[in-house]
Amino acid sequence: MYSSLNTNGNAAAFETGPVSGRFAAVYSEVQNSRIDHALPLPSVLRNPFKVVEGPPSSAAGNPDEIAKLFPNLFGQPSAMLVPNEADSLRSDLKLKIGVVLSGGQAPGGHNVISGIFDYLQDRAKGSILYGFRGGPAGIMKCKYIELNADYIYPYRNQGGFDMICSGRDKIETPEQFKQAEETAVKLDLDGLVVIGGDDSNTNACLLAENFRCKNLKTRVVGCPKTIDGDLKCKEVPTSFGFDTACKIYAEMIGNVMIDARSTGKYYHFVRLMGRAASHITLECALQTQPNITIIGEEVAAKKQTLKNVTDYMVDVICKRAELGYNYGVILIPEGLIDFIPEVQQLIAELNEILAHDVVDEDGIWKKKLTNQSLKLFEFLPQAIQEQLMLERDPHGNVQVAKIETEKMLIQMVETELEKRKQEGSYKGHFKGQSHFFGYEGRCGLPTNFDASYCYALGYGAAALLHSGKTGLISSVGNLGAPVEEWTVGGTALTSLMDVERRHGKFKPVIKKAMVELEGAPFKKFASVREDWALKNCYISPGPIQFVGPSSNAVSHTLLLELGAQA
Amino acid sequence: MYSSLNTNGNAAAFETGPVSGRFAAVYSEVQNSRIDHALPLPSVLRNPFKVVEGPPSSAAGNPDEIAKLFPNLFGQPSAMLVPNEADSLRSDLKLKIGVVLSGGQAPGGHNVISGIFDYLQDRAKGSILYGFRGGPAGIMKCKYIELNADYIYPYRNQGGFDMICSGRDKIETPEQFKQAEETAVKLDLDGLVVIGGDDSNTNACLLAENFRCKNLKTRVVGCPKTIDGDLKCKEVPTSFGFDTACKIYAEMIGNVMIDARSTGKYYHFVRLMGRAASHITLECALQTQPNITIIGEEVAAKKQTLKNVTDYMVDVICKRAELGYNYGVILIPEGLIDFIPEVQQLIAELNEILAHDVVDEDGIWKKKLTNQSLKLFEFLPQAIQEQLMLERDPHGNVQVAKIETEKMLIQMVETELEKRKQEGSYKGHFKGQSHFFGYEGRCGLPTNFDASYCYALGYGAAALLHSGKTGLISSVGNLGAPVEEWTVGGTALTSLMDVERRHGKFKPVIKKAMVELEGAPFKKFASVREDWALKNCYISPGPIQFVGPSSNAVSHTLLLELGAQA
Repeated sequence: MYSSLNTNGNAAAFETGPVSGRFAAVYSEVQNSRIDHALPLPSVLRNPFKVVEGPPSSAAGNPDEIAKLFPNLFGQPSAMLVPNEADSLRSDLKLKIGVVLSGGQAPGGHNVISGIFDYLQDRAKGSILYGFRGGPAGIMKCKYIELNADYIYPYRNQGGFDMICSGRDKIETPEQFKQAEETAVKLDLDGLVVIGGDDSNTNACLLAENFRCKNLKTRVVGCPKTIDGDLKCKEVPTSFGFDTACKIYAEMIGNVMIDARSTGKYYHFVRLMGRAASHITLECALQTQPNITIIGEEVAAKKQTLKNVTDYMVDVICKRAELGYNYGVILIPEGLIDFIPEVQQLIAELNEILAHDVVDEDGIWKKKLTNQSLKLFEFLPQAIQEQLMLERDPHGNVQVAKIETEKMLIQMVETELEKRKQEGSYKGHFKGQSHFFGYEGRCGLPTNFDASYCYALGYGAAALLHSGKTGLISSVGNLGAPVEEWTVGGTALTSLMDVERRHGKFKPVIKKAMVELEGAPFKKFASVREDWALKNCYISPGPIQFVGPSSNAVSHTLLLELGAQA
Repeated sequence: MYSSLNTNGNAAAFETGPVSGRFAAVYSEVQNSRIDHALPLPSVLRNPFKVVEGPPSSAAGNPDEIAKLFPNLFGQPSAMLVPNEADSLRSDLKLKIGVVLSGGQAPGGHNVISGIFDYLQDRAKGSILYGFRGGPAGIMKCKYIELNADYIYPYRNQGGFDMICSGRDKIETPEQFKQAEETAVKLDLDGLVVIGGDDSNTNACLLAENFRCKNLKTRVVGCPKTIDGDLKCKEVPTSFGFDTACKIYAEMIGNVMIDARSTGKYYHFVRLMGRAASHITLECALQTQPNITIIGEEVAAKKQTLKNVTDYMVDVICKRAELGYNYGVILIPEGLIDFIPEVQQLIAELNEILAHDVVDEDGIWKKKLTNQSLKLFEFLPQAIQEQLMLERDPHGNVQVAKIETEKMLIQMVETELEKRKQEGSYKGHFKGQSHFFGYEGRCGLPTNFDASYCYALGYGAAALLHSGKTGLISSVGNLGAPVEEWTVGGTALTSLMDVERRHGKFKPVIKKAMVELEGAPFKKFASVREDWALKNCYISPGPIQFVGPSSNAVSHTLLLELGAQA
């Protein structure tokens, strides 16, 4: 029980500053109960183990270029922890390890840190764990705190990244790499754990290469973080946070579905976080079975236009009206319009025009648009036209993320339905309600799955550093089985990489894992969506439970992908 | 276990029509586990009881007028169920009871119906329960289904109103009362349970009076339903649904708070459902301790202007910036602008002008506004000006509910902060994020509290009808104690009433219970809000749990009100 907490809201104790930690935070009963939730560890981590290596690795693409970019690391094998008669690693070795959170919040980040800390306590007593504050900038500016048991305790199994906070800076320029080296030397770091998404893990690998090249002892291991679920591969079956975020969104979607069915008069258009890939939308669809789900990757693959998407929605709405249903639930990925080629084209043209020309009120500027783009622009609702013209980022570019796609689609569906009503092919009534579920999901209390997964990721990352590994991403597998049977190891980050040509140079990138149209989750969805469209197969997952039914459930995406692999 | 369910989303069974019930619905594991959740009953309902009467009642106001409007019912005593050696009611009496859901969804409605059904099964074997479909219109059109054990089973402890659906029609005109009488006679109804808010319970009382006046045997009992929490009095300590809805919203607010603290760069403006009263906003504030909370009743009492509200927010934001906090969470009740006198005035003027005049683009029409209203109109962000002009209901009136108050306030706060930045009194940075939590809360799985409370309300309502009572509202009390100690009875609906003069006639109304500025919940809030503003006292309640910690928690509002009464 976290002693300074008071669940009745009568607490007199408060935080005293922006980075003062949660020592005096006020906790709810549920938060409190989670602190002492005992985390299961994979059995390989509960017993003596040794690290074994696999065969040499290659790259996801262009291995020759990757080899040039990572001369010290390319080709290194993956590592796997396996049971051993005695621990193979020196327990009297005292390590100095740093940890950093990079990018957007994802439920479970605090547990990765707890896992690293507990490993050091359990297996390398006397080690020190530094938390770099505010993301990679904390490394460059050597802004850190030493994490101890008391400091970490109130964050166990809690959401958020506020233990050390995160940031979006990148370590890119030679000066920045120099700063990172200075910090590594100053703190005498044996290792660094970078908790982040695809970009951050690429950066982790560049750091590892750089430290190795400079003959520093500091090793670097990454951890796969992103609610978007787009950092994954065979060895890293899922990124942490995805499970919790999807379940939070699915709770809300399920509630809205029951509301839709009870009221019988609303179409709820739900936009879900996830700009680059539509994994969240697909997972939420599998959990809740809505009437319409748009998957960005499918829209892109089929080169659909905004009109195609609208027509698909309107067709379903018309058929449902004939069946007597004037209500429904529609899921849309945040990044939908990024997936539509004609929209990308329009935005590129707008960026060009707005950078160089004055936009006159009479609309003469529009003549600079290509015919196709002009047609699309005129097809858009006026509010969206204005958003495209007015909302620009500091570089003058259209801010696609700010466009409320769900509202745009409601207006476009309304217009099309009105047309069909005039033609006599639609006799229903339509009322759209828009929702955006995003920030609500990034900092929820981690599910049992994410709590255990993150703890194992962190514990394993520390083991990899302890055994002298670098340039790996912590990899916990066999996730469909009970936690004790999970596998633990590390995958060569270079093996996940390809190159992209930017400004005339090859840049290493870990390609985002997109929804695969031939993958098991999408195929499952595609096989049932017609039923979901016309019948009402709504499932309401309810609030995340920490004990009892469903409390240890794994995401549909993960289960289906594991099933397809098996 | 509900046998036809399948939690893996592989179900082949679907609903076959809009009112086919949930026989073949697909349930999540949590939904499934809730069906068989055993509901505790107050001990008085588990044992033999009799009904005792209190002293004659009066009215909430204007008793003479209420007496004239309800000549048959006015003054009748409240009823209380008390333990007895043997049941005082004839268990061989077979009753025919109807039940209707009226108005917006609230978690727990299905449990009221289950409670009525189980009472009849337990204490008046052979009785029949009719569910009127689609709200009061179902009574008028005699559209009903006979509810049996199999039909009711899958709805036990489930959210939504879809068992029989609801509606917003009122039984008002002489013809409509005639239709209701015909239905009562046709179905040979002994009783009717009306589950609804203040208006629906007023209507229930008018029906009771009418049936009594016409010498029909049909008795009418109401049940207090509304997530808004504005139907309550000493005998009816809370309306059902409030507990669940607030906990759902508080989960999301708590998540957003942790996100705000982790990111350190957003002000989240959260608008919460509840147009007439701000109970939801106040309860969510007590549960989560945000930096700023606007309570409509206080704004109205202090005759604050929109500028006052904006300035209050901006003052707090500036002080927080000085402390190094450029983030925060702000709660706003949906009905905020209804509470601001100057806005009401502006809207009244706009309604008048737009009904009679053409709105010219040059804005000459604005000259018809009073000076104060013109000033306010010009103060509003342009998007809101347009919304006021364009979004009108079928009667041509401004649709206040459609105004996105949270976005409006973000824009107004931005403008004011910019001004202060120019003046040098603000050096922080501000980014607003808007949220509206509404539909997500109306149909969630009822909390243990709402599940038990509704079941007792329904069970008790049937007992009142069984004992021949009419014109009462089912009243379950002592809610701070364990369920077995709850009291059960009925309160004379006329005792809650006052009159309002409409179209030259007195109309009976149950006054909405507003947030009382002298009440314990508001006083508690007011005593700590300054600390909440500047320090970060965020509490994250987490998702509703059905077992374990906090699963039987009662709302802060209720606890504080009970404490103040004790």
